[in-house]
Amino acid sequence: MPRDVRMRGFAERADVEEVEAFLRQNTKPLPSEIVPLLESVGRVLAEDVVAEVDVPGFPRSAMDGYAIRGEESFGASDYDPISFELVGTALPGNPHIGSVEVGQAVRIMTGAPLPDGADAVIMAEVCQEDSKASRVQVSEAVAPRKNVGAIGEDIRQGERVLLAGRRLRPQDVGLLSSIGHAEVNCVRRPRVALVITGDELLPAGARPSGAKIVDSNSVVMRGLIDRDGAAALPFQILPDVTDRIAEAMSNDEADVILVSGGSSVGQEDHAPRLLGQLGSLDFHGISMRPSSPTGVGRVGETFVFLLPGNPVSCLAAYEFFAGPTIRRLGGRSGAWPHRVAAFPLARKIASAIGRTDYVRVALEEGHAVPLATSGASILSSTVRAIGAVIVPREQEGVAEGEPVEVLLYDEDRSE
Amino acid sequence: MPRDVRMRGFAERADVEEVEAFLRQNTKPLPSEIVPLLESVGRVLAEDVVAEVDVPGFPRSAMDGYAIRGEESFGASDYDPISFELVGTALPGNPHIGSVEVGQAVRIMTGAPLPDGADAVIMAEVCQEDSKASRVQVSEAVAPRKNVGAIGEDIRQGERVLLAGRRLRPQDVGLLSSIGHAEVNCVRRPRVALVITGDELLPAGARPSGAKIVDSNSVVMRGLIDRDGAAALPFQILPDVTDRIAEAMSNDEADVILVSGGSSVGQEDHAPRLLGQLGSLDFHGISMRPSSPTGVGRVGETFVFLLPGNPVSCLAAYEFFAGPTIRRLGGRSGAWPHRVAAFPLARKIASAIGRTDYVRVALEEGHAVPLATSGASILSSTVRAIGAVIVPREQEGVAEGEPVEVLLYDEDRSE
Repeated sequence: MPRDVRMRGFAERADVEEVEAFLRQNTKPLPSEIVPLLESVGRVLAEDVVAEVDVPGFPRSAMDGYAIRGEESFGASDYDPISFELVGTALPGNPHIGSVEVGQAVRIMTGAPLPDGADAVIMAEVCQEDSKASRVQVSEAVAPRKNVGAIGEDIRQGERVLLAGRRLRPQDVGLLSSIGHAEVNCVRRPRVALVITGDELLPAGARPSGAKIVDSNSVVMRGLIDRDGAAALPFQILPDVTDRIAEAMSNDEADVILVSGGSSVGQEDHAPRLLGQLGSLDFHGISMRPSSPTGVGRVGETFVFLLPGNPVSCLAAYEFFAGPTIRRLGGRSGAWPHRVAAFPLARKIASAIGRTDYVRVALEEGHAVPLATSGASILSSTVRAIGAVIVPREQEGVAEGEPVEVLLYDEDRSE
Repeated sequence: MPRDVRMRGFAERADVEEVEAFLRQNTKPLPSEIVPLLESVGRVLAEDVVAEVDVPGFPRSAMDGYAIRGEESFGASDYDPISFELVGTALPGNPHIGSVEVGQAVRIMTGAPLPDGADAVIMAEVCQEDSKASRVQVSEAVAPRKNVGAIGEDIRQGERVLLAGRRLRPQDVGLLSSIGHAEVNCVRRPRVALVITGDELLPAGARPSGAKIVDSNSVVMRGLIDRDGAAALPFQILPDVTDRIAEAMSNDEADVILVSGGSSVGQEDHAPRLLGQLGSLDFHGISMRPSSPTGVGRVGETFVFLLPGNPVSCLAAYEFFAGPTIRRLGGRSGAWPHRVAAFPLARKIASAIGRTDYVRVALEEGHAVPLATSGASILSSTVRAIGAVIVPREQEGVAEGEPVEVLLYDEDRSE
């Protein structure tokens, strides 16, 4: 569904939801790759994991105490303790060699394998050891199987312990370690190419000078790409030269290409035309503020996002369209990744019906204060803001005092 | 305030809040280090940043159009357009050389520097260009300064743009790029040494076999250390040998040492005694479930946490004590870092007054289901759980049906 674009302004603008639905329908997780166990936290499992071993693989003591045959302790009490012959010690990793016979006990530590013959552990607190005489007095009865962790108590061999699609938590990877995995089959991380164009741009790290400004979009994008679990490919700032931009848009190493700058309909805005020629320009011009000149298309299997050069528009277009796509390619959720909090609105937000607005808000005295919505080039507004409020297309703004849900920019809760 | 510890059980247990307060009072952010700009997202600023330049550093066009002296357009209309001599083009990064004199106009693109002499930009949509004749007809008036971004509109030279203690967002780093920073002065990342002891342990990546189990605690801890913004130092699994453990506890490269295993009061539990000898064992034995054998102390400036060897106890002790300390050392918030959601409780949670419980819960039909609270060794419970509920010490459990706040283990919202 490519759209006609006149040289002066967009013929027709797509709704945000239409573009979102298109992206959702055309995105599926990338193929898998083998990841070393210790690098797999936060990655997405590509296949179910079935345990090939029991954990524990042996009955183990859940206490420091003495391993005995439980029924031999029946009737023991403070007044009438029962005496056992102490025949050895079982430590974690150093089992007692030999079995526990009638009338015998083995000193045992938490986590140590229960010796053959024994079926219970009586806790040290109710025992009196006479190590010189190699004997221990037991003054409480313990039932068979008491204080013993059974084979497979934590994980049973054959159990499906983790399902495909799971984003691995630290403890999931700990569990994979405990069942003997050295590697994990994960959804491949999306590779994202940045195509930053503009004769006015100096690379990050330079000082702005004369008519030159320093690129900030690539810096912001790289932070967001990293947050979204993808890898940014190396890149250069390109001059506004058609051949160079076309070549960069045909990068078949990339799963996603983000083109910043040159996405509008002005004299130097080559990107939309080139994308239409190289592949498809599925959308160009979206009913939203900021970011309305955003373009979305594909070259082969690669998604291409034309992000406006203005920093706030670039950020918002990434968050609405590129971010969810990148996360879904990596097997993650396309939902907004931010924490959310509700605050009453300090002043009304005006918005046109039919248009989706991304409004930065500051926090003052417990109220969300909308920051000037003009000035898409004003990056400092996203720095002053605590987050953003989305005003959906069917809504004509939000009245003063109404509670609004804020997508919080900060990852931490304050203390 | 070291505590007496008898060989069989803890003489006295500290309250969780007491240990938390001790840690809060004794932790301050580490000194600063220089971080390359592109690695600074998520890091914490060590000092305020004051802009040394204006952004933009020149007046720039906010439109595609024509730069003129605004007052010359007064009176222009569709019926009575005013004609200007077209003397050049201003592009972003390629300014027009020369100034705009009376009766002249310069073609200008969004982001391009406004030529000298001009004070306004009239948008292309209300102009008619005759490039052969080098003239442009303007059919609308434009006020001086209209469609021009002033010098310092985004950031003014001398402005304090970011404050010390700020955890840098992607857009903050973008802003630092735009004002010409190549490096950022950040709070140093805490260095965390893992001391994993246990003769029964095989390293992560091995297959469990015989009486040996595979270390999972170091794997879980490394995931959490990374989440908390710290760097894990290289480590080896140590045998339960006093000298080796003492040496590892005296690692002065580390800001925090996490000792897993050997924290209780049993025969092989060297760690608490050694910590008391090498530095201070400030707390040992805490009124909580799981993790009651946790120890907290210091060797010199280094915090040492004695974490129980049982995986769930190790995880909970990290989350209550080590995690907040590590985050605060790195200049971050000590608050729980999890997203939170409330669910009604499917079955009551029983808890003793005076004890803090960390209860894993699963989600079933919109209800939080407490998972068996026994079995601190059952790592799979933290895998099945959606998160944890904290039952504070002054509370005698939580009744069925009551809403509980769950600290969610997953970082993503589902779509």
